[in-house]
Amino acid sequence: MQVKEKSLKELNELSNKIRERIIDVVSRKGGHFSSTLGAVELTIAMHYVFDIEKDPFIFDVSHQCYAHKLLTNRWEEFETIRQFGGLSGFTKPNEHKADYFVAGHSSTSISLAVGAAKAAKLKKENRIPVVMIGDGSMSAGMIYEALNELGDLKLPVVIILNDNEMSIAKPIGAISKYLSKLLAGKFYQSFKTSVDKFIRNNMPEGTTYLAKRVENSFKLITPGILFEEMGIDYIGPIDGHDIEEIIEVLQIAKSMNKPVIVHAKTVKGKGYKIAEGQHEQWHGVGPFNIEDGEFIKKNTKKSATEVYSYALLNLAKKYENVVGVTAAMPSGTGIDRLIKEFPNRFWDVAIAEQHAVTSMAAMAKEGFKPFITIYSTFLQRGFDQIIHDVCIMNLPVVFAMDRAGIVGNDGETHQGVFDINFLRFIPNMILFAPRDNFTLEFALEFAYTLSSPCAIRYPRGSFKELEYKANEFSLGKAELLKEGTSNKLFIGYGAGVSKAIEVEKLHNEDIAILDLRFVKPLDSDTLINLSKKYNSWYIFSDSIKQGGVASAILELLSEKNITNIYLKSFEYEDSFIDHGDTVQVEELLQLLPSQLVKLIDK
Amino acid sequence: MQVKEKSLKELNELSNKIRERIIDVVSRKGGHFSSTLGAVELTIAMHYVFDIEKDPFIFDVSHQCYAHKLLTNRWEEFETIRQFGGLSGFTKPNEHKADYFVAGHSSTSISLAVGAAKAAKLKKENRIPVVMIGDGSMSAGMIYEALNELGDLKLPVVIILNDNEMSIAKPIGAISKYLSKLLAGKFYQSFKTSVDKFIRNNMPEGTTYLAKRVENSFKLITPGILFEEMGIDYIGPIDGHDIEEIIEVLQIAKSMNKPVIVHAKTVKGKGYKIAEGQHEQWHGVGPFNIEDGEFIKKNTKKSATEVYSYALLNLAKKYENVVGVTAAMPSGTGIDRLIKEFPNRFWDVAIAEQHAVTSMAAMAKEGFKPFITIYSTFLQRGFDQIIHDVCIMNLPVVFAMDRAGIVGNDGETHQGVFDINFLRFIPNMILFAPRDNFTLEFALEFAYTLSSPCAIRYPRGSFKELEYKANEFSLGKAELLKEGTSNKLFIGYGAGVSKAIEVEKLHNEDIAILDLRFVKPLDSDTLINLSKKYNSWYIFSDSIKQGGVASAILELLSEKNITNIYLKSFEYEDSFIDHGDTVQVEELLQLLPSQLVKLIDK
Repeated sequence: MQVKEKSLKELNELSNKIRERIIDVVSRKGGHFSSTLGAVELTIAMHYVFDIEKDPFIFDVSHQCYAHKLLTNRWEEFETIRQFGGLSGFTKPNEHKADYFVAGHSSTSISLAVGAAKAAKLKKENRIPVVMIGDGSMSAGMIYEALNELGDLKLPVVIILNDNEMSIAKPIGAISKYLSKLLAGKFYQSFKTSVDKFIRNNMPEGTTYLAKRVENSFKLITPGILFEEMGIDYIGPIDGHDIEEIIEVLQIAKSMNKPVIVHAKTVKGKGYKIAEGQHEQWHGVGPFNIEDGEFIKKNTKKSATEVYSYALLNLAKKYENVVGVTAAMPSGTGIDRLIKEFPNRFWDVAIAEQHAVTSMAAMAKEGFKPFITIYSTFLQRGFDQIIHDVCIMNLPVVFAMDRAGIVGNDGETHQGVFDINFLRFIPNMILFAPRDNFTLEFALEFAYTLSSPCAIRYPRGSFKELEYKANEFSLGKAELLKEGTSNKLFIGYGAGVSKAIEVEKLHNEDIAILDLRFVKPLDSDTLINLSKKYNSWYIFSDSIKQGGVASAILELLSEKNITNIYLKSFEYEDSFIDHGDTVQVEELLQLLPSQLVKLIDK
Repeated sequence: MQVKEKSLKELNELSNKIRERIIDVVSRKGGHFSSTLGAVELTIAMHYVFDIEKDPFIFDVSHQCYAHKLLTNRWEEFETIRQFGGLSGFTKPNEHKADYFVAGHSSTSISLAVGAAKAAKLKKENRIPVVMIGDGSMSAGMIYEALNELGDLKLPVVIILNDNEMSIAKPIGAISKYLSKLLAGKFYQSFKTSVDKFIRNNMPEGTTYLAKRVENSFKLITPGILFEEMGIDYIGPIDGHDIEEIIEVLQIAKSMNKPVIVHAKTVKGKGYKIAEGQHEQWHGVGPFNIEDGEFIKKNTKKSATEVYSYALLNLAKKYENVVGVTAAMPSGTGIDRLIKEFPNRFWDVAIAEQHAVTSMAAMAKEGFKPFITIYSTFLQRGFDQIIHDVCIMNLPVVFAMDRAGIVGNDGETHQGVFDINFLRFIPNMILFAPRDNFTLEFALEFAYTLSSPCAIRYPRGSFKELEYKANEFSLGKAELLKEGTSNKLFIGYGAGVSKAIEVEKLHNEDIAILDLRFVKPLDSDTLINLSKKYNSWYIFSDSIKQGGVASAILELLSEKNITNIYLKSFEYEDSFIDHGDTVQVEELLQLLPSQLVKLIDK
């Protein structure tokens, strides 16, 4: 796929071919869709103007990287995108050297570019990092931290701002409004005219002079004053689907030898009419029918997210002081429903997890009961704020962590496996978990009553249906679901409870099952009592082993000097977990009930 | 201290009186000095214009809050600032209700103000959050996330930007340059004239009209275009030591009923000539002689920071690919020496921990060996980046965590007690620690050789001198310092090793001592062997208990089904640790050697 040697006509044909391939595969396999479709021409132009063999190509959050994968010898393999054992849905250096970095969390790209540019300078290599970043990623604090250093050091970096005016959800915040204003402006035409004329007149005089002149002419017409004031040159807006224009502008940007933002207007879903300009719905999709855009339904079971969303809605109706935020995942977390019903009490704060946590800490201090609803993996971004602004102040903020455990096709960057481990040691924090839909509702009711910070977790997709009656939560109280006649005790936490139940059914012994409910504070009385009856304990929890649920129990046993317990944890081992269908991933990890039952000692 | 009823003359006298009190007490007791001296008039004006009984007063990072404490019934108690059992060096609601929030980490203030403003609006209360923030805090991403929402929602918040043009260290980054440009501008005079005239002419017509007119006149002359583009009004720069002027402008800002930044120029150390305009040296100080500014020396022992700094310098001289960053703590971390010697290989990236981590990840990918030197507590800000950008990629970044363990007078916001716990469960991470100055040097040499991420930790102040010869590190290898004749084994990690040695000396038995060296990977062979000889283990480490060092060992023992070990951990219990002299704090926690020895079982 030698992009550099193609004519403009061939490049346009190539973009059609790539789009067809993406639509075909994603319609059958599912995957990120509209953002990657919108970035096809920009990606082709990147490959035309920059050198994939040497220049770092950095895709922010990288769900828009499918065209890049197709352009770098992965045309056939693309069939396996996000499938178990197949291509990752994100850039991944282990998969292909054309992928500079793993990127599944947003807004890391400019920091990476700064590091790469520093490296190139030290190595005296003529390599220019080129970044593609969506407008939605521009709200996170990391971007600003990186621009702050970049604008100061003036290292050569080209940042393509792929602006589809909607990020994943609708645009949020002052920066979005600012970008929209730029897109709406009439700057582009005059810019384009002057660049065209200029290039025609000046090309023979050489690149350095060219760059200087171009730069001066920009200054007169640039609308990107916000970026300019931070020391980053701005070109745009340009049409992000016009390959010729993109190439021209990228060539100029590359020759400027300093940080430049190229602001390109694109249409999300471009090339697939039904998805064009659509908001969240077509961002990441399951299989669909190409003709009519109908999604091929698989699972009609209510998701945990849905249960949560309605339960929180009820709570918000009942108690006026219930408020909350989501960080750019309104429909992913079910908070869209709350924002619609209570626009003055629920907010989408954009990709801004740090701000989400700390601003809600202040609301808690003011007597409100904030629910921060967030994917487990993204809460990692608010870690310091949880300690410093919520827990030191001992404020009753509720962290509702969706997508806890293995998340499936998104893979290693998105696994929600660390939350118990990074929250458990924070003083004042209460950690508990529902085991099914009904206990999830009770969990919210209980969270509302607490006067300390707490965090609950629930899995992607649906809880299993259980035969055990749901009961209210009581602080630090575990629930013995069944006694057993053997010496064994299965201890489950959250979704681990249903796993414990399944394994018990497959086993030929009658085994006691405890729903731990609280990993902090632990129910030490119950555990101590159970240690007298059962001395072989098995821990089921979809969290990483080091410092996790079993570890909490070991700490208790050690403190109480209980030495007669044999304990085995079925938490995750110490490695990152790859993408793929959850069942296949669990099978690989030997964590399916049918596999676990064989690991129960005789 | 009824500020509101005082005349201008009395307010100026008050500012002198407050300054004298601060200089007197800090010269004897030590504390934050130059930033708080620079903020005296701003603080008085805040109290004059806003209502401390209802408006949230939010001090960013809050080391400039001494005048505020003196204005809120803490004049006498101020004598105890930062001392054990005395006033905190930061704002602290438990200490006084005039303190809105705990704040020891920077850049949380605007997020808090957004939360407070949302709350006031929902409660239909006429309360305006007022923030004081230094220019140094403006580089962190949280600020941008908060401004993004604030500029969108347009909630009434007054932000006093206390610009002393140097933050803690010298100004860094594009934002600093931008602010300097504003300060250097001639905008102020014309602004001042127009405001003066305006107020004189319009006052009787009422506040609403006033606000409107003022706003319109600002638009013509404002230099703060960067903030304006983000939807935040800008007034300034003004003279931050002219109480009359500050009051006038704050009254206008308060009446505008929208977000406004008031940019005030101040002099750090104002009122104490020797410190005026000085950079880092006078930020936080120990006792000094008021007449000549000479510091009263206490400890002449080499600090761990100093040892680290020279060791890294040697390493950087030896290996060209050694690079590194500090996040706004150049002299605190000893990286000033490296920046001076290798300005192209070491950087101060400002308060920007997220960017620090991710930009260095890219340098590691490019074949460099980055050392991120940072206080343990501030690394919490880079948590997600450690997982997502460093560890998933398995890049050989070195995290050198200074101020690990109890930090003394700064207290709960600054304790470096969580790092083992939040790093240990991250796949690919290697954790080890030196026990003294010599092993710290070996630790750096060893860190250089690793091809995975690693983190080392060392305490504030000085390591104890030990009689044991220092040896090189070998991956995952502990070091048995001495065998013992009793059944007991003392296991130390990092600074915990010297504690173990001290306790052993006080004890009447001959006890074996193991320097664990690696908490990840653990030296399982050695530990298993030792379990055969010694069955009563005591863990010494200045880290929090949950998920910490003892927990790691319990996990191993459980996995290996070793049940004969009695284990007791002397790590920190599950609560935040207050400020004060380290020995007094440890005494309170029952962690002094003389106390610990009594806790060793017979």
